[in-house]
Amino acid sequence: MTTKTVAVVENILKANDHLAEANRDLLDRTATAAINFMASPGAGKTSLIVRTIAALKDRYRIAGIDGDIATTIDADRMAEAGVHAVQINTGGACHLDAVMLQNALTQIDLDHTDLLIIENVGNLICPASFQLGVHLNILIASVPEGDDKPYKYPTMYRGVQAVILNKIDLLPYFDFDMAYFRRGVEALNPGLAFFPLSAKTGEGLDDWIAWLEGSIQRILA
Amino acid sequence: MTTKTVAVVENILKANDHLAEANRDLLDRTATAAINFMASPGAGKTSLIVRTIAALKDRYRIAGIDGDIATTIDADRMAEAGVHAVQINTGGACHLDAVMLQNALTQIDLDHTDLLIIENVGNLICPASFQLGVHLNILIASVPEGDDKPYKYPTMYRGVQAVILNKIDLLPYFDFDMAYFRRGVEALNPGLAFFPLSAKTGEGLDDWIAWLEGSIQRILA
Repeated sequence: MTTKTVAVVENILKANDHLAEANRDLLDRTATAAINFMASPGAGKTSLIVRTIAALKDRYRIAGIDGDIATTIDADRMAEAGVHAVQINTGGACHLDAVMLQNALTQIDLDHTDLLIIENVGNLICPASFQLGVHLNILIASVPEGDDKPYKYPTMYRGVQAVILNKIDLLPYFDFDMAYFRRGVEALNPGLAFFPLSAKTGEGLDDWIAWLEGSIQRILA
Repeated sequence: MTTKTVAVVENILKANDHLAEANRDLLDRTATAAINFMASPGAGKTSLIVRTIAALKDRYRIAGIDGDIATTIDADRMAEAGVHAVQINTGGACHLDAVMLQNALTQIDLDHTDLLIIENVGNLICPASFQLGVHLNILIASVPEGDDKPYKYPTMYRGVQAVILNKIDLLPYFDFDMAYFRRGVEALNPGLAFFPLSAKTGEGLDDWIAWLEGSIQRILA
């Protein structure tokens, strides 16, 4: 049974990659820069997204897609931040996949959207295996999770274009070895863009927004 | 393809449940109380386990099994706490399953073990679907994750015999609504044993240890 299972899983991943390419074509055709945020539960994905929307919404037309197992809590927060937000409830699945994104994209006016912000399901493992077809994959780590996470969840750190370390306002209350964390990230993804910040206090946010804007400009150029 | 995939997944889960029963039989036959700790990455599973080992190791013969995608960091910490510890590297899988536990059990002298502590892979979704055959499933939540996790990850909260809320020493630095968190847990799993504590300061630890010892006594009776 193991062999059969592996074959099916490979078929699923191949079908997913194919759909991810179709998503990417659609996003490129409609000049929509798409960004996928991934993180452990409670790392502060939604808080950072709300901050990012606030910083960029005067300059870009933004839409949001939120993936969760249940509830619309996060999409509601995106909507409150002033963007059109679509909730995907995965019904148990531990990640978004390309077909879920494809369906959600039908509910967004892509011709009038410059920036699409996708919040993946809270999980440090599964989302890494399923390409969505976006332009940027961003990992949000957080100080309370601990400094050993790059070592313990390497796949996630390999497939992203930037790592954000959120909740740096809490550094005084944790034994978080920044050099050890950075070494772990560098070993997996050398030269990766890195933004320590606090979505709560706003510290470090400017560097992240400046990098993101530069990336969006390159994608839309 | 969807139908075929679902059938395979059901076969896997059925095969897993069958092996979980075999694990349980073995644990019962050898009078080994087995406890599976599940949590999001960074909730403090290993720290709480180290504290729990320290509190119980004079009264029980303890062994540990640690599940991670990569590294032996956590099993090393268990071993430092003074117990025989076996590391399972899942090689990408987001959870332990019954066959992984079955293999790990062959490396433990169960006839001379009273208490087996299992640390699952850091994940709030996948481990809930794979029974291991243990006597107790415990979920460790933590204050920095936020008070909305029972609502967003309901499956995990339904299948456990106790919820620990770790890192309560950090409550002053977070907007964590304890009543909202408790209501969410109660709705999913009424009357569930609940232990707010700090594995760092030791606050609240006595209640958890007392409950655990009572449970172990009942299992071994």
